[in-house]
Amino acid sequence: MNSTIPASEEQFLEIIDSHFPNNHRHMPLGRGDDCAELAFPARAVVTTDLFIENIHFRRDYFSPGDIGHKALAVNISDIAGMGCAPLGFSLGLMVPSSNAPDTGYWNELFAGMAALAAQHDIPLTGGDLSQAPVLGLSVTIWGAPEPHAKVLKRQTCSPGDVILCIGDFGLVRTGLYAMEHDGNAAAEVYPQAAAAHRRPTPQVAQGLALSKAGLATACMDLSDGLARDLPRLLGTNLGAALTIDPASLHPETTAYCKSHGIDPVHFAYLGGEDYALLATVPAHKRDDALKRIPEAQAIGTVTETSGILLNGAEPTAPGFDHFSHNQES
Amino acid sequence: MNSTIPASEEQFLEIIDSHFPNNHRHMPLGRGDDCAELAFPARAVVTTDLFIENIHFRRDYFSPGDIGHKALAVNISDIAGMGCAPLGFSLGLMVPSSNAPDTGYWNELFAGMAALAAQHDIPLTGGDLSQAPVLGLSVTIWGAPEPHAKVLKRQTCSPGDVILCIGDFGLVRTGLYAMEHDGNAAAEVYPQAAAAHRRPTPQVAQGLALSKAGLATACMDLSDGLARDLPRLLGTNLGAALTIDPASLHPETTAYCKSHGIDPVHFAYLGGEDYALLATVPAHKRDDALKRIPEAQAIGTVTETSGILLNGAEPTAPGFDHFSHNQES
Repeated sequence: MNSTIPASEEQFLEIIDSHFPNNHRHMPLGRGDDCAELAFPARAVVTTDLFIENIHFRRDYFSPGDIGHKALAVNISDIAGMGCAPLGFSLGLMVPSSNAPDTGYWNELFAGMAALAAQHDIPLTGGDLSQAPVLGLSVTIWGAPEPHAKVLKRQTCSPGDVILCIGDFGLVRTGLYAMEHDGNAAAEVYPQAAAAHRRPTPQVAQGLALSKAGLATACMDLSDGLARDLPRLLGTNLGAALTIDPASLHPETTAYCKSHGIDPVHFAYLGGEDYALLATVPAHKRDDALKRIPEAQAIGTVTETSGILLNGAEPTAPGFDHFSHNQES
Repeated sequence: MNSTIPASEEQFLEIIDSHFPNNHRHMPLGRGDDCAELAFPARAVVTTDLFIENIHFRRDYFSPGDIGHKALAVNISDIAGMGCAPLGFSLGLMVPSSNAPDTGYWNELFAGMAALAAQHDIPLTGGDLSQAPVLGLSVTIWGAPEPHAKVLKRQTCSPGDVILCIGDFGLVRTGLYAMEHDGNAAAEVYPQAAAAHRRPTPQVAQGLALSKAGLATACMDLSDGLARDLPRLLGTNLGAALTIDPASLHPETTAYCKSHGIDPVHFAYLGGEDYALLATVPAHKRDDALKRIPEAQAIGTVTETSGILLNGAEPTAPGFDHFSHNQES
């Protein structure tokens, strides 16, 4: 069975049903009808992220389990960026007609996705299957803040607020660059960077902590790198003065940059796919935030005028853009 | 401007913003953050449908406006199949890197989608963009029944219930077959079949009528043809005796089948992509249903034992499967 290629929609749905429970307190009617029926909070947040072969991942250095995990993880990260917890998700699955994966491959892919879904206690509510030229997953996910907590938005911070980053930045870029160049072999040299690229960990608990305690004045999912995302957090009127200690970067980022003659701070600032949280807190809550969220590090402050200073100088490069693929190091 | 190809995510988002309003009573926070924030009813229904080039449509006989319209219409139809009205939708847009559409093309595509969204008063809440080998749209949509009305499910009908079809069945199959063979030229011979294939009309008002009056015992969106979908409506224990008068079929279906020597009733029964509603009502409510929903036609009754009889005989062919593409006429 594991070596055959699923030939019908029914066979696919059987595989999916074997991995994802079809009942949940938030899902009064499960998969198998035109729609699922959901029990929603009065206010919910919702987003969609695509995860497409040769754009977001490559089959030669992502295992099927990595692909299933990451397609869901990048969506959960968007929910975390709102200071919310995920409640459920819907899947549009593109099944490649060339180099078609077999049943064993699909089982591993769904197992990777289902393990992360179980960890966050969220049901797969249904979706759609279609043949396509490449393997692709379109995940739509929804979530909600904890009771009496607020949804964390962008562009709601003030001058003087401290900028926090929760999670490594630059580490996934290290993994991406190393694996694009050397494939799986790079994972032996940069194991944590490879893991961060293949299996990012969404920071849901940390986002909830930022929201629940009324700590954060603004928050977002850091997915396109500090260089591109920080201006989105600040808005057009504010700027930032960043102080990034090279010693605070992940050792694999430092090692990669050293061996390639690249400035590690600038490399980490460009980042991309960090799936960290980027947040601001009032200066007087800085210490409280760092205590409540041990993974957080203060990387700068919000300034009154637009523009970003990185350790006192103006950085110039554009950062990470999945869409245009104009990446600079 | 219209002849250039959008080069960045920002340019794309500007085009999208020019077509889709970013405020709505159901959307307290609009597009532009990690997620949109939505005001939800306590119970909502949700579904995802993919719409992918060369699987669900071809660019040579779908205009960009047709593509935008249909990608959303097939999703709204799933909401209608639950007896619900749509409330909002999220979009994963795959932008083809080869044969890349220009800005004018995208404007027409979004205009087609936005016109249908405006007609149903539903906001686009956000989504994602990615390059991909072909043009594709992944739409996730949610909706809710009217107050005090129930969500209409499958497999909840009883023997003796009358089976209703609301909307033509077989007409899209006529358009699909004719246009797959003759492209745009077929639209001159079979204009209504071509229109039904390119611009299906979701039957939201009719689904709400079936739900509100407590009329329907079961309902679904007829998207894979009667042959495949009727067993899904009935479940494994029940069957149906269908009585389909050839004179009730659309004249273009009749004409197409005559010119190809095909039995029109069987052809219409196989159908596919009808985006009609398939519902059951108790026998004593039949006349009331036909009066309230003038587009409805009674096509048979639910029987106590499984299996389907079509005008007294057992049909054999499998119907329409987007996934396996094993279609038979």
